[in-house]
Amino acid sequence: MTLSELRASLDEPALGPQLYEVVADLYPICRSITGDGVRETLRRLQRVAPLTLHEVPSGIDVFDWTVPREWNIRDAWVKNARGERVVDFQCSNLHVVSYSVPVRRRLSLAELRPHLFTLPDRPDWIPYRTSYYKESWGFCVSQRQLDALPDGEYEVCIDSSLEPGSLTYGECYVPGESTDEILVSCHVCHPSLANDNLSSMAVAALLAGRLGGMGLRHSYRFLFIPGTIGSITWLARNETVVPRIRHGLVLACLGDAGRFTYKKSRRGEAPIDRAAAHVLRELGDHEVVDFSPYGYDERQFCSPGFNLPVGRLSRTPHGRFPEYHTSADNLGFVKPASLAGSFAACLAIFDVLEHDRTYVNQNPKGEPQLGKRGLYHAIGGLTHSPDSEMAMLWVLNLSDGQHSLLDIAQRSGYAFGVVQRAAGLLCASGLLKEAVS
Amino acid sequence: MTLSELRASLDEPALGPQLYEVVADLYPICRSITGDGVRETLRRLQRVAPLTLHEVPSGIDVFDWTVPREWNIRDAWVKNARGERVVDFQCSNLHVVSYSVPVRRRLSLAELRPHLFTLPDRPDWIPYRTSYYKESWGFCVSQRQLDALPDGEYEVCIDSSLEPGSLTYGECYVPGESTDEILVSCHVCHPSLANDNLSSMAVAALLAGRLGGMGLRHSYRFLFIPGTIGSITWLARNETVVPRIRHGLVLACLGDAGRFTYKKSRRGEAPIDRAAAHVLRELGDHEVVDFSPYGYDERQFCSPGFNLPVGRLSRTPHGRFPEYHTSADNLGFVKPASLAGSFAACLAIFDVLEHDRTYVNQNPKGEPQLGKRGLYHAIGGLTHSPDSEMAMLWVLNLSDGQHSLLDIAQRSGYAFGVVQRAAGLLCASGLLKEAVS
Amino acid sequence: MTLSELRASLDEPALGPQLYEVVADLYPICRSITGDGVRETLRRLQRVAPLTLHEVPSGIDVFDWTVPREWNIRDAWVKNARGERVVDFQCSNLHVVSYSVPVRRRLSLAELRPHLFTLPDRPDWIPYRTSYYKESWGFCVSQRQLDALPDGEYEVCIDSSLEPGSLTYGECYVPGESTDEILVSCHVCHPSLANDNLSSMAVAALLAGRLGGMGLRHSYRFLFIPGTIGSITWLARNETVVPRIRHGLVLACLGDAGRFTYKKSRRGEAPIDRAAAHVLRELGDHEVVDFSPYGYDERQFCSPGFNLPVGRLSRTPHGRFPEYHTSADNLGFVKPASLAGSFAACLAIFDVLEHDRTYVNQNPKGEPQLGKRGLYHAIGGLTHSPDSEMAMLWVLNLSDGQHSLLDIAQRSGYAFGVVQRAAGLLCASGLLKEAVS
Repeated sequence: MTLSELRASLDEPALGPQLYEVVADLYPICRSITGDGVRETLRRLQRVAPLTLHEVPSGIDVFDWTVPREWNIRDAWVKNARGERVVDFQCSNLHVVSYSVPVRRRLSLAELRPHLFTLPDRPDWIPYRTSYYKESWGFCVSQRQLDALPDGEYEVCIDSSLEPGSLTYGECYVPGESTDEILVSCHVCHPSLANDNLSSMAVAALLAGRLGGMGLRHSYRFLFIPGTIGSITWLARNETVVPRIRHGLVLACLGDAGRFTYKKSRRGEAPIDRAAAHVLRELGDHEVVDFSPYGYDERQFCSPGFNLPVGRLSRTPHGRFPEYHTSADNLGFVKPASLAGSFAACLAIFDVLEHDRTYVNQNPKGEPQLGKRGLYHAIGGLTHSPDSEMAMLWVLNLSDGQHSLLDIAQRSGYAFGVVQRAAGLLCASGLLKEAVS
Repeated sequence: MTLSELRASLDEPALGPQLYEVVADLYPICRSITGDGVRETLRRLQRVAPLTLHEVPSGIDVFDWTVPREWNIRDAWVKNARGERVVDFQCSNLHVVSYSVPVRRRLSLAELRPHLFTLPDRPDWIPYRTSYYKESWGFCVSQRQLDALPDGEYEVCIDSSLEPGSLTYGECYVPGESTDEILVSCHVCHPSLANDNLSSMAVAALLAGRLGGMGLRHSYRFLFIPGTIGSITWLARNETVVPRIRHGLVLACLGDAGRFTYKKSRRGEAPIDRAAAHVLRELGDHEVVDFSPYGYDERQFCSPGFNLPVGRLSRTPHGRFPEYHTSADNLGFVKPASLAGSFAACLAIFDVLEHDRTYVNQNPKGEPQLGKRGLYHAIGGLTHSPDSEMAMLWVLNLSDGQHSLLDIAQRSGYAFGVVQRAAGLLCASGLLKEAVS
Repeated sequence: MTLSELRASLDEPALGPQLYEVVADLYPICRSITGDGVRETLRRLQRVAPLTLHEVPSGIDVFDWTVPREWNIRDAWVKNARGERVVDFQCSNLHVVSYSVPVRRRLSLAELRPHLFTLPDRPDWIPYRTSYYKESWGFCVSQRQLDALPDGEYEVCIDSSLEPGSLTYGECYVPGESTDEILVSCHVCHPSLANDNLSSMAVAALLAGRLGGMGLRHSYRFLFIPGTIGSITWLARNETVVPRIRHGLVLACLGDAGRFTYKKSRRGEAPIDRAAAHVLRELGDHEVVDFSPYGYDERQFCSPGFNLPVGRLSRTPHGRFPEYHTSADNLGFVKPASLAGSFAACLAIFDVLEHDRTYVNQNPKGEPQLGKRGLYHAIGGLTHSPDSEMAMLWVLNLSDGQHSLLDIAQRSGYAFGVVQRAAGLLCASGLLKEAVS
């Protein structure tokens, strides 16, 4: 099966629930940048795609960073004077600031207060907070929970551990004809947040699973990594792989009902940037934004020492939907149809990258006579030529060895697929040959 | 007489009827891509300009094409059961599909129907159709004619011939100081269609006639050729001439009442593209469109093996007016004033190309003192300087050997003629010299 | 004190009246392109800044020009038949056409009329006119004055002299670490016109005064010169200095209540052009216009033989306010707050030029860990990062030796100062080093 055939046979209505099921299965797990939550998550994703799990020991230096101690948590709560759990990790793993150090203590509300984080503007939602690189502890609660706490003595317990262990990430390499790689990366470090980023983990895993065994031009490398420290760790341990990366996509927040947003790579006009913009234009309402050094792991892939052609595909971008980093980014916020559409958009982008080639018109002086080859309408004088013929004329006119099919699609306004089919017909008739690069 | 003087002396109100007369004279002739119709057309144009007629034998290979057999037609009709001509070539030569093979046959309406072409949306108009490269026959009729045909038996006759002969085209070379050429090409293959392209044939012929004997910098080559096969034939037989072509214009549809449309060459920013855009901007409402590999013979001149700087000047472009390729593109659709305006626009474009030169300011450090040369107003302190002085300041400032007068006109916003006059004054005063190229 | 400290300590409410006082002191003096008016003006400016006065003898050739004879005037009037002064130089020095030759004569109104200049559209205002390079004489009067003159005989007197002398200009050089120069030039040749250009003379003199003795990277050269002939004279006598000019600003019309207008240098994208545009964008409503070879001495500095990166800073540009070159450009037209704001804008532009450097990220592979250096917030998961951190991320991402701080400010949208502070923090932590150029 080819990528184009896979796209043609996609059953999005069936695919959506399948992706959603992966999200729902992983949702309850308490993940962080290290620990058993990520490990369990990656093991479950192995049902979908043949991920390899890598363990990188705590204390290893990776560029300017050090792999941190491993964090695990079993339980956490705040009890009131009557011994009732008024904040309970068992109800939501967002209640604990990620990487909180172990604590067990009695204290007054005033003493507790600096350790409580709320969202005053969204009084029913629990925020998501972390303290990876500074030893600290805290609880995230809804504003209503906080308001309901009377003065008095409380008991807090965080039954966590922060000990030498390892950082875990998943990797799936799908070999193609060439060792040139397309990198697909998603962060796996967030606890019960559905859109950010279980949505993308599900999409990436299913992509990795489906691409395996297909006839591909590029090789594909899927990374399931904790944010920031994960990509830095991977880059530090794979510097010899980096030069093979021809194109890359960071996937984040792909499950909400919003339109697509593509964030360009630092290069700005890399083929991945043009391919993604072209595909999204064909798909309809969307936004393309310039690179900025904030967001997800594109920050690391596009750091100046690498400057990789890696963009980011999202639906509504981080920080632009109110549910972002709150308990409202839950299973109800993610839509099966959105997940399936995101999967299809990724495939469409890969399809362009797989088939973008530069050709040379073998009859460059004047147009070739398409009619005698059965490629042109017989009755002349019509007002318009059919799109299929127009696409052939564009391919012939611009195939001077300087313009790829994507260039031709952009300049002509025709969809890449239309241009690709035209090139196929012309190659079959001997009028076009791939340029020797 | 110089080109500028010719422009200054143009009497457009008198010129319009003169051009219209040429159109009206040629309108009844049945032209096609070969045959006596084109031959007779070119002979009549010899009254206006010294065209040379070229005959290229059928069967000759020209790049990927072969010069076709010659087609001629004497009569054609469809008769009803009572022997009455219900479709009659003598009424309109559009009634016969161009290049129809001879036929004489009785058949039912049902058998005849696939050979009839109509325009259901325009029930009174006869379409124009061709079948140059596939042996076939057919009639074009108005929808009302078709609707009025009762069932029953009909007799059809197409008294045509399709036999070895030749392809005919006209050429007029007007020598100038330099062998660098400006190519002007128009298609001559359409039967009774006035705007498409008798309008342009009249304009081109009169241009060729008027330019002869004038003091010109460039040489001009006017081609009167059948569409597609004509330009391909010319290119194939004149490959040694091609390198001399510095600028070119395809003329098409220059007689309707619409505003000008200039279609850029494939290069997009060639001097012809900038000159035409500049002139049309000075003339008022107009449109400049990007190159596309469809339309008229710019398709061939701009094929990648030639990539000539050839744009196209039209009024309303082909396919954008409803009368296009129908019997409604008749003598009433073409306006004398439009023809004269098109003639003048061509001259204005040539004028820019003739006079666009690059100069070097001989006093490049600070401004020269224009006042002591009588080139600047004596009383200072005014709010604005006159345009003539402003143009001199622009020419002096930008004449560093890198900017041509057209560049200066574009950047300053002044008309080319104003800039040209300023340069003339400065040259006369010794402040400016032409750059050695 | 550094430039940044000077900016931080600027007391604009106190500065405005100080600048206005300079304008008011100089307003009554009758200046021209030569003569005692300019000399006296420059001497008074020596109270503000250590100007050097240069005297260039009449008759000296400077490029295409010759330093003219020196013009001085003591009195001038038109008397009616009753011996009453109906036009009186003592009331306004605008009444005499600058460089009028001496005259004493009786004549009729009809004979006098060609020597009278008015503004019919502004009947109460006196125009400003000159006749530097053609021997002539004339009076400028309000339209109401003219209308009130009955027929009859008049006596005119212009008690002026036009004799060999010298052209006077002022110069103030403020040395910095480098001999690379920032040129600041203003014209000093207009008589009682407050905005044009006493405003800029006051701003430039105070800038020169304040910059002296500060720690500066660039050297600064302030020119106080008569328009056109002054800049040409300076350029002709300082060709060896010219190559040191890295950036330049012509200052003109900086005292009216309008928004800022920056006119780009001929180069269009020189650092001064980008710095000025960036500063004005931060300051609010403003306009940036393209270069044109008209206006003030940017005409000479940007002539093609020099093509210096010299732009022009104005508020409402010359010719765009009705008071321009009339008696209405008086002390009431100039606002202390505008003068102070112009001074501050110049300093802000200098500040960018002083601090625009290119750095190299010392940890280019992935982001450095800012948190362990105390440069990043400890609690993660927030929707937005503070601007100070975002600016650091931008500086790190773009500091590849190819982007200066101004480039980074432009691309990130942050103010130059924010980017500069971020770079400072990063340098202090060893993460950034200046690029070796």
